[in-house]
Amino acid sequence: MIMPDMATMLAFVFTDAAVEPEPLAGMLRSAVDRSFNRITVDSDTSTNDTVYLLANGESGVRFEADSAQPLTEALDSLTRDLALDIVRDGEGADRLAEIRVAGARTDADAKTVAMAVANSPLVKTALAGADPNWGRILGAAGKAGVAFDARKASVRINGTEVCAAGIRADFDEPAVQRGMDADDVVIGVDLGGGPGRAVVWTCDFTEDYIHINADYRS
Amino acid sequence: MIMPDMATMLAFVFTDAAVEPEPLAGMLRSAVDRSFNRITVDSDTSTNDTVYLLANGESGVRFEADSAQPLTEALDSLTRDLALDIVRDGEGADRLAEIRVAGARTDADAKTVAMAVANSPLVKTALAGADPNWGRILGAAGKAGVAFDARKASVRINGTEVCAAGIRADFDEPAVQRGMDADDVVIGVDLGGGPGRAVVWTCDFTEDYIHINADYRS
Repeated sequence: MIMPDMATMLAFVFTDAAVEPEPLAGMLRSAVDRSFNRITVDSDTSTNDTVYLLANGESGVRFEADSAQPLTEALDSLTRDLALDIVRDGEGADRLAEIRVAGARTDADAKTVAMAVANSPLVKTALAGADPNWGRILGAAGKAGVAFDARKASVRINGTEVCAAGIRADFDEPAVQRGMDADDVVIGVDLGGGPGRAVVWTCDFTEDYIHINADYRS
Repeated sequence: MIMPDMATMLAFVFTDAAVEPEPLAGMLRSAVDRSFNRITVDSDTSTNDTVYLLANGESGVRFEADSAQPLTEALDSLTRDLALDIVRDGEGADRLAEIRVAGARTDADAKTVAMAVANSPLVKTALAGADPNWGRILGAAGKAGVAFDARKASVRINGTEVCAAGIRADFDEPAVQRGMDADDVVIGVDLGGGPGRAVVWTCDFTEDYIHINADYRS
Protein backbone atom coordinates (compact mmCIF):
# COMPACT_ATOMS: atom_id res chain seq x y z
CA MET A 1 0.00 0.00 0.00
CA ILE A 2 1.19 3.50 -0.68
CA MET A 3 1.70 5.86 2.26
CA PRO A 4 -0.21 3.80 4.82
CA ASP A 5 0.67 6.32 7.49
CA MET A 6 -1.81 8.92 6.35
CA ALA A 7 -3.79 8.01 3.25
CA THR A 8 -3.11 5.80 0.31
CA MET A 9 -3.63 7.96 -2.71
CA LEU A 10 -5.16 11.38 -3.13
CA ALA A 11 -5.00 12.87 -6.63
CA PHE A 12 -6.15 16.38 -7.45
CA VAL A 13 -6.40 17.38 -11.10
CA PHE A 14 -7.18 20.95 -12.12
CA THR A 15 -8.09 22.46 -15.44
CA ASP A 16 -9.07 25.97 -16.48
CA ALA A 17 -11.36 24.55 -19.15
CA ALA A 18 -15.08 25.26 -18.89
CA VAL A 19 -16.97 21.96 -18.69
CA GLU A 20 -20.29 21.09 -17.07
CA PRO A 21 -20.06 18.73 -14.07
CA GLU A 22 -21.80 15.79 -15.75
CA PRO A 23 -19.59 15.40 -18.84
CA LEU A 24 -16.56 16.20 -16.67
CA ALA A 25 -17.43 13.31 -14.32
CA GLY A 26 -17.77 10.99 -17.31
CA MET A 27 -14.35 12.02 -18.60
CA LEU A 28 -12.81 11.43 -15.19
CA ARG A 29 -14.42 8.01 -14.78
CA SER A 30 -13.16 6.99 -18.18
CA ALA A 31 -9.63 8.30 -17.52
CA VAL A 32 -9.48 6.65 -14.09
CA ASP A 33 -10.62 3.34 -15.55
CA ARG A 34 -7.65 3.46 -17.94
CA SER A 35 -5.09 4.58 -15.34
CA PHE A 36 -5.60 4.34 -11.57
CA ASN A 37 -7.89 1.31 -11.92
CA ARG A 38 -5.27 -0.52 -14.00
CA ILE A 39 -2.36 -0.52 -11.58
CA THR A 40 -1.31 -2.75 -8.72
CA VAL A 41 1.61 -2.90 -6.35
CA ASP A 42 0.57 -5.83 -4.16
CA SER A 43 -3.16 -6.43 -4.80
CA ASP A 44 -4.07 -4.78 -1.51
CA THR A 45 -6.46 -1.87 -1.64
CA SER A 46 -7.36 1.10 0.50
CA THR A 47 -10.53 2.84 1.52
CA ASN A 48 -8.83 6.19 1.07
CA ASP A 49 -8.12 6.32 -2.65
CA THR A 50 -9.57 9.48 -4.12
CA VAL A 51 -9.30 11.37 -7.38
CA TYR A 52 -10.72 14.87 -7.73
CA LEU A 53 -11.05 16.75 -10.99
CA LEU A 54 -11.91 20.43 -10.78
CA ALA A 55 -12.64 22.71 -13.73
CA ASN A 56 -12.80 26.39 -12.90
CA GLY A 57 -13.67 27.64 -16.40
CA GLU A 58 -11.08 30.41 -16.08
CA SER A 59 -9.84 29.99 -19.68
CA GLY A 60 -13.31 30.47 -21.07
CA VAL A 61 -12.68 27.52 -23.43
CA ARG A 62 -15.84 25.44 -23.36
CA PHE A 63 -15.92 21.69 -23.88
CA GLU A 64 -19.02 19.56 -24.37
CA ALA A 65 -19.09 15.78 -23.99
CA ASP A 66 -18.99 15.23 -27.77
CA SER A 67 -16.22 17.71 -28.60
CA ALA A 68 -13.87 17.22 -25.70
CA GLN A 69 -11.19 15.08 -27.34
CA PRO A 70 -8.26 17.44 -26.61
CA LEU A 71 -9.31 17.58 -22.96
CA THR A 72 -9.95 13.83 -22.57
CA GLU A 73 -6.60 13.05 -24.19
CA ALA A 74 -4.79 15.41 -21.84
CA LEU A 75 -6.68 13.94 -18.89
CA ASP A 76 -5.89 10.36 -19.95
CA SER A 77 -2.22 11.19 -20.34
CA LEU A 78 -2.03 12.98 -16.98
CA THR A 79 -3.86 10.31 -14.95
CA ARG A 80 -1.76 7.61 -16.60
CA ASP A 81 1.45 9.42 -15.68
CA LEU A 82 0.27 9.82 -12.07
CA ALA A 83 -0.81 6.18 -11.88
CA LEU A 84 2.49 4.88 -13.24
CA ASP A 85 4.37 7.04 -10.74
CA ILE A 86 2.50 5.19 -7.98
CA VAL A 87 3.69 1.84 -9.32
CA ARG A 88 7.28 3.04 -9.77
CA ASP A 89 7.15 4.23 -6.16
CA GLY A 90 5.79 0.84 -4.96
CA GLU A 91 7.49 -0.40 -1.80
CA GLY A 92 10.85 -1.84 -2.80
CA ALA A 93 10.01 -1.69 -6.52
CA ASP A 94 12.98 -1.73 -8.89
CA ARG A 95 11.07 -1.87 -12.16
CA LEU A 96 7.73 -1.19 -13.80
CA ALA A 97 6.06 -3.88 -15.89
CA GLU A 98 3.39 -3.21 -18.47
CA ILE A 99 1.16 -6.28 -18.86
CA ARG A 100 -0.59 -6.35 -22.23
CA VAL A 101 -3.21 -9.05 -22.73
CA ALA A 102 -4.83 -9.69 -26.12
CA GLY A 103 -6.86 -12.51 -27.63
CA ALA A 104 -9.46 -12.65 -24.84
CA ARG A 105 -13.19 -13.02 -25.45
CA THR A 106 -13.89 -9.54 -24.02
CA ASP A 107 -11.93 -6.55 -22.75
CA ALA A 108 -13.17 -7.38 -19.24
CA ASP A 109 -11.77 -10.92 -19.50
CA ALA A 110 -8.48 -9.48 -20.73
CA LYS A 111 -8.30 -7.15 -17.72
CA THR A 112 -9.04 -10.04 -15.34
CA VAL A 113 -6.20 -12.07 -16.84
CA ALA A 114 -3.84 -9.07 -16.90
CA MET A 115 -4.54 -8.35 -13.21
CA ALA A 116 -3.95 -12.02 -12.28
CA VAL A 117 -0.54 -11.84 -13.99
CA ALA A 118 0.18 -8.42 -12.44
CA ASN A 119 -0.66 -9.65 -8.92
CA SER A 120 1.09 -13.02 -9.08
CA PRO A 121 3.89 -13.14 -6.48
CA LEU A 122 5.70 -15.67 -8.68
CA VAL A 123 5.58 -13.38 -11.74
CA LYS A 124 6.62 -10.40 -9.61
CA THR A 125 9.59 -12.23 -8.04
CA ALA A 126 10.61 -13.45 -11.53
CA LEU A 127 10.55 -9.78 -12.58
CA ALA A 128 12.81 -8.96 -9.64
CA GLY A 129 15.21 -11.66 -10.80
CA ALA A 130 14.98 -10.60 -14.50
CA ASP A 131 13.89 -14.16 -15.22
CA PRO A 132 11.94 -14.68 -18.49
CA ASN A 133 9.79 -17.27 -16.75
CA TRP A 134 6.91 -17.60 -19.23
CA GLY A 135 5.58 -20.63 -17.31
CA ARG A 136 4.78 -18.43 -14.30
CA ILE A 137 3.10 -15.88 -16.60
CA LEU A 138 0.94 -18.50 -18.31
CA GLY A 139 0.24 -20.15 -14.92
CA ALA A 140 -0.99 -16.84 -13.50
CA ALA A 141 -3.17 -16.28 -16.58
CA GLY A 142 -4.58 -19.76 -16.09
CA LYS A 143 -5.69 -19.16 -12.51
CA ALA A 144 -7.69 -16.02 -13.40
CA GLY A 145 -10.93 -17.92 -13.93
CA VAL A 146 -11.08 -17.00 -17.62
CA ALA A 147 -11.20 -19.98 -19.97
CA PHE A 148 -8.65 -20.12 -22.79
CA ASP A 149 -6.81 -22.77 -24.76
CA ALA A 150 -3.21 -22.86 -23.52
CA ARG A 151 -2.19 -24.48 -26.82
CA LYS A 152 -3.09 -21.23 -28.59
CA ALA A 153 -1.46 -18.89 -26.06
CA SER A 154 1.78 -17.01 -26.60
CA VAL A 155 3.93 -14.77 -24.39
CA ARG A 156 6.27 -11.95 -25.42
CA ILE A 157 8.78 -10.19 -23.21
CA ASN A 158 9.90 -6.80 -24.54
CA GLY A 159 8.68 -7.93 -27.96
CA THR A 160 10.52 -11.25 -28.07
CA GLU A 161 8.31 -14.32 -28.27
CA VAL A 162 9.31 -16.59 -25.37
CA CYS A 163 6.30 -18.93 -25.57
CA ALA A 164 4.36 -19.89 -28.68
CA ALA A 165 1.36 -22.23 -28.90
CA GLY A 166 1.70 -22.89 -25.17
CA ILE A 167 5.28 -24.13 -25.24
CA ARG A 168 8.72 -22.57 -25.04
CA ALA A 169 9.66 -20.58 -28.13
CA ASP A 170 13.15 -20.62 -29.59
CA PHE A 171 14.67 -17.41 -28.24
CA ASP A 172 17.96 -15.90 -27.08
CA GLU A 173 17.50 -16.26 -23.32
CA PRO A 174 20.53 -14.23 -22.16
CA ALA A 175 19.43 -11.37 -24.43
CA VAL A 176 15.88 -11.42 -23.02
CA GLN A 177 17.29 -11.52 -19.48
CA ARG A 178 19.46 -8.49 -20.20
CA GLY A 179 16.40 -6.71 -21.60
CA MET A 180 14.45 -7.45 -18.40
CA ASP A 181 17.16 -5.96 -16.21
CA ALA A 182 15.76 -2.49 -16.93
CA ASP A 183 13.46 0.13 -15.41
CA ASP A 184 10.63 -0.84 -17.76
CA VAL A 185 9.57 -4.28 -18.97
CA VAL A 186 6.68 -5.10 -21.31
CA ILE A 187 5.00 -8.49 -20.97
CA GLY A 188 2.57 -9.44 -23.72
CA VAL A 189 0.17 -12.35 -23.41
CA ASP A 190 -1.98 -13.41 -26.37
CA LEU A 191 -4.67 -15.89 -25.41
CA GLY A 192 -5.43 -16.54 -29.08
CA GLY A 193 -9.16 -16.54 -28.54
CA GLY A 194 -10.89 -13.26 -29.38
CA PRO A 195 -10.77 -9.47 -29.78
CA GLY A 196 -10.60 -8.58 -26.04
CA ARG A 197 -7.55 -6.68 -24.87
CA ALA A 198 -6.31 -4.77 -21.82
CA VAL A 199 -3.19 -3.12 -20.44
CA VAL A 200 -2.31 -2.91 -16.73
CA TRP A 201 0.81 -2.01 -14.82
CA THR A 202 2.63 -3.60 -11.92
CA CYS A 203 6.08 -3.63 -10.35
CA ASP A 204 8.53 -6.28 -9.27
CA PHE A 205 8.48 -7.87 -5.83
CA THR A 206 11.76 -7.47 -3.97
CA GLU A 207 13.03 -8.28 -0.50
CA ASP A 208 12.60 -4.58 0.31
CA TYR A 209 8.82 -4.97 -0.07
CA ILE A 210 8.86 -7.49 2.78
CA HIS A 211 11.31 -5.41 4.78
CA ILE A 212 9.19 -2.26 4.47
CA ASN A 213 5.86 -3.94 5.22
CA ALA A 214 6.95 -6.44 7.88
CA ASP A 215 9.11 -4.12 9.94
CA TYR A 216 7.07 -1.00 10.47
CA ARG A 217 4.64 -0.98 13.33
CA SER A 218 1.09 0.19 12.81
CA MET B 1 4.73 -22.63 -5.39
CA ILE B 2 5.86 -25.85 -3.80
CA MET B 3 8.59 -27.85 -5.51
CA PRO B 4 8.39 -26.06 -8.85
CA ASP B 5 11.32 -28.10 -10.11
CA MET B 6 9.30 -31.28 -10.58
CA ALA B 7 5.65 -31.04 -9.59
CA THR B 8 3.82 -28.96 -7.08
CA MET B 9 1.97 -31.40 -4.91
CA LEU B 10 1.25 -35.10 -5.33
CA ALA B 11 -0.56 -36.79 -2.42
CA PHE B 12 -1.20 -40.53 -2.27
CA VAL B 13 -3.51 -41.83 0.46
CA PHE B 14 -3.99 -45.56 1.03
CA THR B 15 -6.47 -47.46 3.14
CA ASP B 16 -7.12 -51.16 3.57
CA ALA B 17 -10.82 -50.47 4.04
CA ALA B 18 -13.27 -51.93 1.54
CA VAL B 19 -15.22 -49.07 -0.10
CA GLU B 20 -16.83 -48.84 -3.52
CA PRO B 21 -15.24 -46.28 -5.88
CA GLU B 22 -18.22 -43.90 -5.94
CA PRO B 23 -18.65 -43.28 -2.19
CA LEU B 24 -14.84 -43.25 -1.86
CA ALA B 25 -14.59 -40.46 -4.47
CA GLY B 26 -17.24 -38.48 -2.58
CA MET B 27 -15.34 -38.84 0.70
CA LEU B 28 -12.13 -37.69 -0.99
CA ARG B 29 -13.77 -34.66 -2.63
CA SER B 30 -15.23 -33.65 0.72
CA ALA B 31 -11.92 -34.13 2.57
CA VAL B 32 -9.95 -32.23 -0.10
CA ASP B 33 -12.44 -29.37 0.02
CA ARG B 34 -11.73 -29.02 3.75
CA SER B 35 -7.95 -29.38 3.49
CA PHE B 36 -5.95 -28.97 0.26
CA ASN B 37 -8.51 -26.54 -1.18
CA ARG B 38 -8.29 -24.35 1.92
CA ILE B 39 -4.58 -23.57 1.94
CA THR B 40 -2.44 -20.96 0.25
CA VAL B 41 1.20 -20.02 0.31
CA ASP B 42 1.22 -17.23 -2.27
CA SER B 43 -2.08 -17.48 -4.23
CA ASP B 44 -0.27 -19.02 -7.18
CA THR B 45 -1.51 -22.36 -8.39
CA SER B 46 -0.14 -25.28 -10.36
CA THR B 47 -1.50 -27.57 -13.03
CA ASN B 48 0.16 -30.53 -11.32
CA ASP B 49 -1.69 -30.77 -8.01
CA THR B 50 -3.05 -34.26 -7.57
CA VAL B 51 -4.54 -36.30 -4.72
CA TYR B 52 -5.08 -40.04 -5.09
CA LEU B 53 -7.02 -42.19 -2.64
CA LEU B 54 -6.74 -45.94 -3.05
CA ALA B 55 -8.69 -48.53 -1.06
CA ASN B 56 -7.51 -52.11 -1.52
CA GLY B 57 -10.13 -53.78 0.70
CA GLU B 58 -7.41 -55.92 2.35
CA SER B 59 -8.89 -55.50 5.85
CA GLY B 60 -12.26 -56.82 4.71
CA VAL B 61 -13.93 -54.00 6.69
CA ARG B 62 -16.65 -52.62 4.45
CA PHE B 63 -17.84 -49.01 4.52
CA GLU B 64 -20.89 -47.65 2.73
CA ALA B 65 -21.48 -43.95 2.09
CA ASP B 66 -23.96 -43.68 4.99
CA SER B 67 -21.91 -45.53 7.63
CA ALA B 68 -18.41 -44.34 6.85
CA GLN B 69 -17.92 -41.81 9.64
CA PRO B 70 -14.79 -43.41 11.13
CA LEU B 71 -13.22 -43.51 7.68
CA THR B 72 -14.23 -39.97 6.69
CA GLU B 73 -12.96 -38.62 10.00
CA ALA B 74 -9.60 -40.34 9.54
CA LEU B 75 -9.44 -39.09 5.96
CA ASP B 76 -10.28 -35.52 7.00
CA SER B 77 -7.63 -35.59 9.70
CA LEU B 78 -4.97 -37.03 7.40
CA THR B 79 -5.59 -34.68 4.46
CA ARG B 80 -5.64 -31.73 6.83
CA ASP B 81 -2.30 -32.74 8.33
CA LEU B 82 -0.79 -33.11 4.84
CA ALA B 83 -2.25 -29.78 3.71
CA LEU B 84 -0.96 -27.91 6.76
CA ASP B 85 2.50 -29.44 6.21
CA ILE B 86 2.48 -27.82 2.76
CA VAL B 87 1.81 -24.41 4.28
CA ARG B 88 4.42 -24.87 7.02
CA ASP B 89 6.90 -25.79 4.28
CA GLY B 90 5.96 -22.70 2.20
CA GLU B 91 8.96 -20.88 0.79
CA GLY B 92 10.51 -18.85 3.59
CA ALA B 93 7.56 -19.45 5.92
CA ASP B 94 8.21 -18.98 9.63
CA ARG B 95 4.68 -19.47 10.91
CA LEU B 96 1.30 -20.94 10.05
CA ALA B 97 -1.84 -18.84 10.36
CA GLU B 98 -5.33 -20.24 10.66
CA ILE B 99 -7.87 -17.76 9.29
CA ARG B 100 -11.35 -18.30 10.74
CA VAL B 101 -14.15 -16.24 9.24
CA ALA B 102 -17.65 -16.22 10.73
CA GLY B 103 -20.72 -14.03 10.37
CA ALA B 104 -20.87 -14.20 6.56
CA ARG B 105 -24.09 -14.67 4.61
CA THR B 106 -22.97 -18.11 3.35
CA ASP B 107 -20.06 -20.51 3.87
CA ALA B 108 -18.91 -19.72 0.32
CA ASP B 109 -18.80 -15.98 1.13
CA ALA B 110 -16.84 -16.79 4.29
CA LYS B 111 -14.29 -18.79 2.30
CA THR B 112 -13.92 -15.96 -0.23
CA VAL B 113 -13.21 -13.49 2.58
CA ALA B 114 -10.88 -15.94 4.36
CA MET B 115 -8.88 -16.50 1.17
CA ALA B 116 -8.61 -12.74 0.54
CA VAL B 117 -7.15 -12.31 4.04
CA ALA B 118 -4.92 -15.38 3.60
CA ASN B 119 -3.53 -14.11 0.27
CA SER B 120 -3.05 -10.47 1.26
CA PRO B 121 0.66 -9.57 1.07
CA LEU B 122 0.07 -6.89 3.71
CA VAL B 123 -1.51 -9.37 6.14
CA LYS B 124 1.24 -11.89 5.42
CA THR B 125 4.05 -9.39 5.97
CA ALA B 126 2.33 -8.23 9.20
CA LEU B 127 2.37 -11.90 10.25
CA ALA B 128 6.10 -12.02 9.52
CA GLY B 129 6.56 -8.97 11.74
CA ALA B 130 4.24 -10.33 14.49
CA ASP B 131 2.23 -7.13 14.06
CA PRO B 132 -1.42 -7.27 15.27
CA ASN B 133 -2.42 -5.07 12.35
CA TRP B 134 -6.22 -5.52 12.37
CA GLY B 135 -6.60 -2.72 9.81
CA ARG B 136 -4.81 -4.79 7.19
CA ILE B 137 -6.98 -7.81 8.05
CA LEU B 138 -10.22 -5.83 7.76
CA GLY B 139 -8.90 -4.12 4.61
CA ALA B 140 -8.21 -7.50 3.00
CA ALA B 141 -11.68 -8.73 4.00
CA GLY B 142 -13.14 -5.60 2.44
CA LYS B 143 -11.53 -6.17 -0.96
CA ALA B 144 -12.93 -9.71 -1.31
CA GLY B 145 -16.04 -8.56 -3.15
CA VAL B 146 -18.35 -9.77 -0.36
CA ALA B 147 -20.55 -7.06 1.13
CA PHE B 148 -20.51 -6.60 4.90
CA ASP B 149 -20.97 -3.77 7.38
CA ALA B 150 -17.53 -2.85 8.73
CA ARG B 151 -19.24 -1.29 11.78
CA LYS B 152 -20.36 -4.78 12.81
CA ALA B 153 -17.05 -6.53 12.11
CA SER B 154 -14.61 -7.74 14.75
CA VAL B 155 -11.14 -9.29 14.63
CA ARG B 156 -9.49 -11.62 17.13
CA ILE B 157 -5.85 -12.66 17.19
CA ASN B 158 -5.16 -15.82 19.18
CA GLY B 159 -8.49 -15.23 20.94
CA THR B 160 -7.89 -11.62 21.92
CA GLU B 161 -10.29 -9.11 20.42
CA VAL B 162 -8.18 -6.47 18.66
CA CYS B 163 -11.01 -4.84 16.70
CA ALA B 164 -14.64 -4.53 17.77
CA ALA B 165 -17.48 -2.90 15.82
CA GLY B 166 -14.98 -1.89 13.13
CA ILE B 167 -12.63 0.06 15.38
CA ARG B 168 -9.63 -0.74 17.56
CA ALA B 169 -10.51 -2.70 20.69
CA ASP B 170 -8.87 -2.04 24.03
CA PHE B 171 -6.21 -4.78 24.21
CA ASP B 172 -2.72 -5.46 25.57
CA GLU B 173 -0.72 -4.92 22.39
CA PRO B 174 2.68 -6.20 23.60
CA ALA B 175 0.99 -9.39 24.85
CA VAL B 176 -0.73 -9.97 21.49
CA GLN B 177 2.56 -9.31 19.69
CA ARG B 178 4.34 -11.87 21.86
CA GLY B 179 1.56 -14.35 21.12
CA MET B 180 2.00 -13.80 17.37
CA ASP B 181 5.72 -14.52 17.56
CA ALA B 182 4.95 -18.24 17.47
CA ASP B 183 4.77 -21.16 15.04
CA ASP B 184 0.96 -20.98 14.95
CA VAL B 185 -1.31 -17.94 14.92
CA VAL B 186 -5.12 -17.92 14.79
CA ILE B 187 -6.85 -14.94 13.18
CA GLY B 188 -10.61 -14.73 13.65
CA VAL B 189 -12.79 -12.36 11.65
CA ASP B 190 -16.48 -12.01 12.45
CA LEU B 191 -18.38 -10.09 9.79
CA GLY B 192 -21.42 -9.89 12.05
CA GLY B 193 -23.86 -10.64 9.26
CA GLY B 194 -24.96 -14.26 9.06
CA PRO B 195 -24.32 -17.95 9.75
CA GLY B 196 -21.64 -18.52 7.06
CA ARG B 197 -18.23 -19.61 8.28
CA ALA B 198 -14.96 -21.00 6.89
CA VAL B 199 -11.43 -21.85 7.96
CA VAL B 200 -8.37 -21.59 5.71
CA TRP B 201 -4.63 -21.68 6.34
CA THR B 202 -1.77 -19.52 5.14
CA CYS B 203 1.78 -18.67 6.16
CA ASP B 204 3.73 -15.49 6.71
CA PHE B 205 5.58 -13.69 3.92
CA THR B 206 9.27 -13.25 4.64
CA GLU B 207 12.28 -11.94 2.74
CA ASP B 208 13.24 -15.58 2.12
CA TYR B 209 10.14 -16.01 -0.03
CA ILE B 210 11.48 -13.34 -2.37
CA HIS B 211 15.00 -14.70 -2.19
CA ILE B 212 13.88 -18.24 -3.06
CA ASN B 213 11.56 -17.23 -5.90
CA ALA B 214 13.54 -14.36 -7.42
CA ASP B 215 16.95 -16.02 -7.44
CA TYR B 216 16.41 -19.47 -8.93
CA ARG B 217 16.41 -19.77 -12.69
CA SER B 218 13.69 -21.72 -14.44
